[in-house]
Amino acid sequence: MHPHLLRIIDNALDEDIASGDLTTEACVPETAVAVAHAIARKDMIICGGEVFAAVFARIDARMQTDVHIAEAARARAGAKIWTVRGSARSILMGERTALNLVQRMCGISTIARRYVDALPPGSKTRITDTRKTTPGLRALERYAVRMGGAHNHRDNLGSAVLIKDNHIVAAGGIANAISRARARAPHTSKIECEVTSLEELDQALAAGADIVMLDNMPTDLVKSAVERTNKRAFIEASGGITLERIAELAHAGVDAISIGALTHSAPAADIGLDFEA
Amino acid sequence: MHPHLLRIIDNALDEDIASGDLTTEACVPETAVAVAHAIARKDMIICGGEVFAAVFARIDARMQTDVHIAEAARARAGAKIWTVRGSARSILMGERTALNLVQRMCGISTIARRYVDALPPGSKTRITDTRKTTPGLRALERYAVRMGGAHNHRDNLGSAVLIKDNHIVAAGGIANAISRARARAPHTSKIECEVTSLEELDQALAAGADIVMLDNMPTDLVKSAVERTNKRAFIEASGGITLERIAELAHAGVDAISIGALTHSAPAADIGLDFEA
Amino acid sequence: MHPHLLRIIDNALDEDIASGDLTTEACVPETAVAVAHAIARKDMIICGGEVFAAVFARIDARMQTDVHIAEAARARAGAKIWTVRGSARSILMGERTALNLVQRMCGISTIARRYVDALPPGSKTRITDTRKTTPGLRALERYAVRMGGAHNHRDNLGSAVLIKDNHIVAAGGIANAISRARARAPHTSKIECEVTSLEELDQALAAGADIVMLDNMPTDLVKSAVERTNKRAFIEASGGITLERIAELAHAGVDAISIGALTHSAPAADIGLDFEA
Amino acid sequence: MHPHLLRIIDNALDEDIASGDLTTEACVPETAVAVAHAIARKDMIICGGEVFAAVFARIDARMQTDVHIAEAARARAGAKIWTVRGSARSILMGERTALNLVQRMCGISTIARRYVDALPPGSKTRITDTRKTTPGLRALERYAVRMGGAHNHRDNLGSAVLIKDNHIVAAGGIANAISRARARAPHTSKIECEVTSLEELDQALAAGADIVMLDNMPTDLVKSAVERTNKRAFIEASGGITLERIAELAHAGVDAISIGALTHSAPAADIGLDFEA
Amino acid sequence: MHPHLLRIIDNALDEDIASGDLTTEACVPETAVAVAHAIARKDMIICGGEVFAAVFARIDARMQTDVHIAEAARARAGAKIWTVRGSARSILMGERTALNLVQRMCGISTIARRYVDALPPGSKTRITDTRKTTPGLRALERYAVRMGGAHNHRDNLGSAVLIKDNHIVAAGGIANAISRARARAPHTSKIECEVTSLEELDQALAAGADIVMLDNMPTDLVKSAVERTNKRAFIEASGGITLERIAELAHAGVDAISIGALTHSAPAADIGLDFEA
Amino acid sequence: MHPHLLRIIDNALDEDIASGDLTTEACVPETAVAVAHAIARKDMIICGGEVFAAVFARIDARMQTDVHIAEAARARAGAKIWTVRGSARSILMGERTALNLVQRMCGISTIARRYVDALPPGSKTRITDTRKTTPGLRALERYAVRMGGAHNHRDNLGSAVLIKDNHIVAAGGIANAISRARARAPHTSKIECEVTSLEELDQALAAGADIVMLDNMPTDLVKSAVERTNKRAFIEASGGITLERIAELAHAGVDAISIGALTHSAPAADIGLDFEA
Repeated sequence: MHPHLLRIIDNALDEDIASGDLTTEACVPETAVAVAHAIARKDMIICGGEVFAAVFARIDARMQTDVHIAEAARARAGAKIWTVRGSARSILMGERTALNLVQRMCGISTIARRYVDALPPGSKTRITDTRKTTPGLRALERYAVRMGGAHNHRDNLGSAVLIKDNHIVAAGGIANAISRARARAPHTSKIECEVTSLEELDQALAAGADIVMLDNMPTDLVKSAVERTNKRAFIEASGGITLERIAELAHAGVDAISIGALTHSAPAADIGLDFEA
Repeated sequence: MHPHLLRIIDNALDEDIASGDLTTEACVPETAVAVAHAIARKDMIICGGEVFAAVFARIDARMQTDVHIAEAARARAGAKIWTVRGSARSILMGERTALNLVQRMCGISTIARRYVDALPPGSKTRITDTRKTTPGLRALERYAVRMGGAHNHRDNLGSAVLIKDNHIVAAGGIANAISRARARAPHTSKIECEVTSLEELDQALAAGADIVMLDNMPTDLVKSAVERTNKRAFIEASGGITLERIAELAHAGVDAISIGALTHSAPAADIGLDFEA
Repeated sequence: MHPHLLRIIDNALDEDIASGDLTTEACVPETAVAVAHAIARKDMIICGGEVFAAVFARIDARMQTDVHIAEAARARAGAKIWTVRGSARSILMGERTALNLVQRMCGISTIARRYVDALPPGSKTRITDTRKTTPGLRALERYAVRMGGAHNHRDNLGSAVLIKDNHIVAAGGIANAISRARARAPHTSKIECEVTSLEELDQALAAGADIVMLDNMPTDLVKSAVERTNKRAFIEASGGITLERIAELAHAGVDAISIGALTHSAPAADIGLDFEA
Repeated sequence: MHPHLLRIIDNALDEDIASGDLTTEACVPETAVAVAHAIARKDMIICGGEVFAAVFARIDARMQTDVHIAEAARARAGAKIWTVRGSARSILMGERTALNLVQRMCGISTIARRYVDALPPGSKTRITDTRKTTPGLRALERYAVRMGGAHNHRDNLGSAVLIKDNHIVAAGGIANAISRARARAPHTSKIECEVTSLEELDQALAAGADIVMLDNMPTDLVKSAVERTNKRAFIEASGGITLERIAELAHAGVDAISIGALTHSAPAADIGLDFEA
Repeated sequence: MHPHLLRIIDNALDEDIASGDLTTEACVPETAVAVAHAIARKDMIICGGEVFAAVFARIDARMQTDVHIAEAARARAGAKIWTVRGSARSILMGERTALNLVQRMCGISTIARRYVDALPPGSKTRITDTRKTTPGLRALERYAVRMGGAHNHRDNLGSAVLIKDNHIVAAGGIANAISRARARAPHTSKIECEVTSLEELDQALAAGADIVMLDNMPTDLVKSAVERTNKRAFIEASGGITLERIAELAHAGVDAISIGALTHSAPAADIGLDFEA
Repeated sequence: MHPHLLRIIDNALDEDIASGDLTTEACVPETAVAVAHAIARKDMIICGGEVFAAVFARIDARMQTDVHIAEAARARAGAKIWTVRGSARSILMGERTALNLVQRMCGISTIARRYVDALPPGSKTRITDTRKTTPGLRALERYAVRMGGAHNHRDNLGSAVLIKDNHIVAAGGIANAISRARARAPHTSKIECEVTSLEELDQALAAGADIVMLDNMPTDLVKSAVERTNKRAFIEASGGITLERIAELAHAGVDAISIGALTHSAPAADIGLDFEA
């Protein structure tokens, strides 16, 4: 597992057990062994098996984890997802940290899948996340988005260009902003420009934007924008997106719909850890 | 500001701008200055002013932040919360990280306040969080819970004892578990024991539990438990808590109601950053 | 082993061998193997076997460590405590770091045991540490205190309330201080209040302190305080504690005696590492 | 202040106030200011003023610290050493961490001075520390040793050569060990060789050791060794050193006496923090 | 300055002065002040002023640095680049670390400028770096490349797609590789494909590669590739690039030339730090 | 492997794959396995086998690495140096980081060997590095210097004394500087003094310098200095050293020649990673 992810896990463990576990150390013999199953309490899309296993392995290298439901697969309420075996103490000490991580991950993959499922059958429109991720957990959350069948937007401010209103004002217009960004950005990064009207769209297209982001546009306007763009750029709809609008936006012909709520407001998936009697 | 919080902020900045900001560096002159206001897009309880200011200050020590709405106060939709002034580049580079942090914090304080407001007037019952916090952000989230008017539960596995079913099984019963925990825990930590029936409650009280946690009990059973306890222990209700049940549980006489959803599923508060023209 | 402890060990190794070991790399062939025994040069209480093993394992994952004397057990002068086997270079490179750690740990457990042994037979009074621990090593030192048979006081400023003179002055009296702390602290944390006279004791008890700390009181005054408290609170004696006073304080009826010297002034236990010829 | 020291301080603060200070936040108003004096409760050699100030400054950049007694100076019992002014909360939150650090530092400088004072007047023998320092605090402790008037031994395994018995065995004799070390070590590092008899001393001198360490030798043997060496090498006495033997070892003519107890067993200096009424 | 860069600087300082500076502390009075000028010993392109200043500021917050030659400007041999003023000790302690950093940065910007200057006048071809940067210093080195007038390639493996021979084999051909990458990558990242022949070029173009990398092709073949591509993709030449070939490759019509040597083999620029008498 | 080196590797991996590898994850099946050989494209001195293996092992603990050419041995162009086997994804993800590290290491060992080979046969003069190393990689680079057959100079500012012009001025002359340094430095560290003329040399020798550094002296002057020193000190030549001058400086009788270019300007060794078909 990548050192970056281990650092996230170690950080999380530090918060919870840097001073040990008063209860477990008092009540559970050091030699006790146990088997515990992570159970989906509701339907969900599974994600985070490696993270789940790694939490216990960081506490105790001898812990074993079995996977019953694969990454990205759907679990029905009551399904057994993973099984961890080994020291009872280690299971109890890692339980909360492991669940906090995978509940967030599965919460995100589940909501992402819901948006993906709202697309019309055969649609080529992609659902994407945004940079509205939990500080410190971006890599995990972007992974969860993918497991839900959605796509990632740019990773960070250094990996692609996204010109917003303030950049446009500062640069003195869309054309200037795009040409400066083109001159500055790696040739491997696309240039995306946010537009709020058809006039701005025209300017962005004329300036050679690779991607235009239609910001908070009603569906009718989106349709006109798609027509006007006429394949000259990749079209992303963003802002004011609800589950209900996914199909109509896809029908309108946008290439992608980006949704902050995928990560910033996903409720935790309900997963319990049941010990074998 | 405490080094621990600065580390959280630095971590978050690292995710987003370790390789710089392609767009801003291309479009915004190094010497441009700007003023931007954090605006509540909906009603919310404010929390995180110091964090908001610190994000910009870590990027650029000369940034200035003004506070318009105090911590724990209610902001109406449209209200100006904070104002940041200084380098336009630094504002744009810190914007997403600052918002990701305070939207989560305000989201939690807002939902916490909603639960607190659901208590009957004059109630002494306290609403508390749990350890179901976002990995890496526990200190910030516990603070947000308090700003919402709710209380914190134990900080981590080393700060108090909470005996759950697996501990009871491993220790050979409630009495054993409590006496072992009493012998092991610092005298400054209380001993809490989870119970699922009146029989278990009796055992926990007999063993001298400081706190009993009524796990997933219907309100009628809670009432019986409160009566039976008769002030011999602090009573916490937990599991299956909804906003609707808060009042009836408070009337039933519990001392505290703990709610994982305060932190694990709080939707981000909607805050925007508006630049002054 | 918990990531927090590994970080302590890595930190310690960094100080000593970040630039390698000039002597060992020059004199000892890379393939040489050795067996070395940690020997107690004096009587002591053993503590730190896992740490001892982990130091060598961090340098070289193939190192093996055997335990001859269990944690918390007494070793006589000359006794073999642990044996490490493997690369001679790795043993020599880790020797000082390992010894520095376990000598401190055994030093603390040994002095803690001495205080515990000074209690009258059958006494229920507990000996506790304080927060006067070595910066960076608190988790290890609190563990060592427990291995010595003593108890831990609160872990840190966030895990329990301890109201001291300055808090009392700032809050406007003991009653105010206690009620504010009660309102603020998690219900899982006890409220302790330091008192220096019987008048203050009365105020603390009236305000419902869970624990009263008798600060620097002569034994006679302690006796009066115990009587006056009459089981209404847990009583901790602190300040000016010497080995000689332990028995009389226990007889006076205090519940706990807290001693900073357990950690801040424990001399290192004398442990040597002897190589097998 | 050097980043390395700030990291030590941040680490220490993390242990104590990562989750805040329940008591102080409850009892002390956010706007309260205070002035507190660090007072020597006993005679001691002062050391750590910068560290003391930095602890408070890391919590709150506006804190002010005045120095009344200079580094390395002697403070009489009752003397005011430093004064910190600013937020009362910040003083209370930093108090224990600051004291834990400076009590250890002053403890070491005080005991170091005691050994230095035991040297005959005008003696050129130097008292030195060893690598038996507290893991994680070596830089601070070596500084404290110097403030006590003693000297530092090599910093770590990479900064100088010290050939001990196991190296000699592995290398096949003293001559081999020294010549290999000479070939491997930077020309800026001296070669020190531990000897336990006059025979070994002869071998070390013949092989060109820069420094010979007389290990655990009685004073008579030390005298013979000094004579025999006849200025051909720097002579360090080590092992079994007590305060009582310092003068006789100095008279015997050794150049340095190294003492692990300077750092591994120095009792904390008794320093209190008194708030101005 | 961004926390990520401060971490690089702190890391570098840790290597050099974690145990202080024996010489400076011995020879230079604590109160001595000095003024020192960074002087270009040869012609070079300047880069790193902020880093230079930050090294000294991390050691001592009161240090002042003046900039005489702007970032990206050319300095003639003998020119004064920056001036640092303040504690003489702090200047001496930071000197080597500061120079090590800026000599590398200026070395890179200087060599980058040399390649850029080798382009025919008015050429639109861009010179770019690669991921062959010094481990740990990528952000600094990419910045230096830009100061030299060259461009950056993708930041890391997560910011854009670059399909190489092994990916093609694993995916079962260029078409498969590109379509899989298109499906997986964020829509903000371009898809680049390495080709070694015109056949592969045709496949990559047919599959819709945004960028084709002509790997190690002689200039004649490059010309054919440019013609054949006919603006359907951005063309990057890579491998076997020398200063001599820049003009001919530009004339051949490639859009970019990527050169590992910009970062992996740039000799340090010769900069000295001269103290004012 | 030492934790310090693992931290360097983790840092490097963080730069490159913290957000994963878009291309590899898209194109290469998770279960694919591969075998890849590190091939010397030119003649070089090998160094970094452990680092090479550790990069892959940090990503994936199951990776296996075989060593074909030992550390410090010469590889001919085309030679197979190491082979890594295991997950194809892990090889592709670690490839660039591993190569960036070992190319630098082999680059340094190769250039170091070139200087060593320029010494006259049988010469006792040693070639040494300086502190002009890449920030963050000093430990690796000093190791590479040794593998090239050269020697290390002092590790850092805390491991030995090197008095330069500014120290001399600040201390009021060479004699003062040396005696202060002698008084301050550990007895295990040598005192080196930079001299630029025979007068300064005389002063340094008179003051008892252990090492004199002849700074930027022409060979004739070096010869005079060697004669004048007459074995009273170790002699190091530094400044303006080229490969061509090595032999004449050795013949002149200096003990060491220190060369910054060994580390600050070593071009990366050309190593490729070839996958088995």
